[in-house]
Amino acid sequence: MPHHTKTITISTNGKALHEFTDEVEQWLASIDIETGLLTLFCRHTSASLLINENAASAVQRDMLRWLERIAPEHDGYEHDTEGPDDMPAHLRTVLTGASLQIPVVDGRMVLGTWQGIYLAEHRANPHRRQVVAHVMGE
Amino acid sequence: MPHHTKTITISTNGKALHEFTDEVEQWLASIDIETGLLTLFCRHTSASLLINENAASAVQRDMLRWLERIAPEHDGYEHDTEGPDDMPAHLRTVLTGASLQIPVVDGRMVLGTWQGIYLAEHRANPHRRQVVAHVMGE
Amino acid sequence: MPHHTKTITISTNGKALHEFTDEVEQWLASIDIETGLLTLFCRHTSASLLINENAASAVQRDMLRWLERIAPEHDGYEHDTEGPDDMPAHLRTVLTGASLQIPVVDGRMVLGTWQGIYLAEHRANPHRRQVVAHVMGE
Repeated sequence: MPHHTKTITISTNGKALHEFTDEVEQWLASIDIETGLLTLFCRHTSASLLINENAASAVQRDMLRWLERIAPEHDGYEHDTEGPDDMPAHLRTVLTGASLQIPVVDGRMVLGTWQGIYLAEHRANPHRRQVVAHVMGE
Repeated sequence: MPHHTKTITISTNGKALHEFTDEVEQWLASIDIETGLLTLFCRHTSASLLINENAASAVQRDMLRWLERIAPEHDGYEHDTEGPDDMPAHLRTVLTGASLQIPVVDGRMVLGTWQGIYLAEHRANPHRRQVVAHVMGE
Repeated sequence: MPHHTKTITISTNGKALHEFTDEVEQWLASIDIETGLLTLFCRHTSASLLINENAASAVQRDMLRWLERIAPEHDGYEHDTEGPDDMPAHLRTVLTGASLQIPVVDGRMVLGTWQGIYLAEHRANPHRRQVVAHVMGE
């Protein structure tokens, strides 16, 4: 059964959600797989992956504000040598998770109408983030 | 290697946890797979999947109350055009996640004794939710 | 396509993060798979799996303190018959999740430089925790 892998690089410039649904869709379209399983894996401990509504941009802003509140900066962390945004970034990464799995049916991800795939950057400074995409199927 | 997919539809009627472990088990039993990987994927941004204790019903009620507190309604959201339960539903969906992966060994999911599979409905109004089940193995 | 499964048992002695990256790496090295998908699944509702930075031990301590705050003990739970740490353990398990998926490329997990695999024990008393590892590939 064929496997395919690809590393997707996303350049970030501060805390934000970066949608990359189209890039994944285009890669899948270039591969001859009808039915299978797609996995996306983020190789970092201060950036993460999530699926979120991609229609209203206010949803993304509310999501980022909620992440600020739920794992705030300057909250008495012992690990504070890499800047006030570092430990909250680790916490938000664990909360949202490093990987996503999406079944592929009829050659396409089974995403719902409003579901978009996002990289969440949790650090304040620019980074280049690597997401490994893996699909197996036939 | 065989793949199998099935769409499970769950009708909801307000915020609740809906266990559907039995439905997944019955589907798996109808398929000739001894060893493999099961993926469940929820096609929505205001309902999600989780594994939780299925013995004491009070656990489910405490879980729902905790979700209310951790992503409360009326918390100053910018995105408020679809009702006060909408943005919290997106947040709770990201917190709990859209997919579950469970290995299959000897033809059965390797769930622990107390683990049940739940759809978490985060919206107040009735919905019909689609969960795509995918298994591959041999 | 080959499948391999293994049950990893981790003995715990109170709330802590237990890294077991090496054990997974050694198991993978003993198997002849070049490209594939690894899944780790925790068979419990009061212990969970997560990927976290494994360089600074203070990160793990901050993570545990954050989990205490986000799902605290003695928070008015209805389910309190199994001790004050039980219901928070269920909540922290749902927050962090029961499974991890990591692509395998060139015979190794594609973990980033700082990513370690952890079992999070959320109960105060000693337990023996089972994590089922499953890999398929070729």
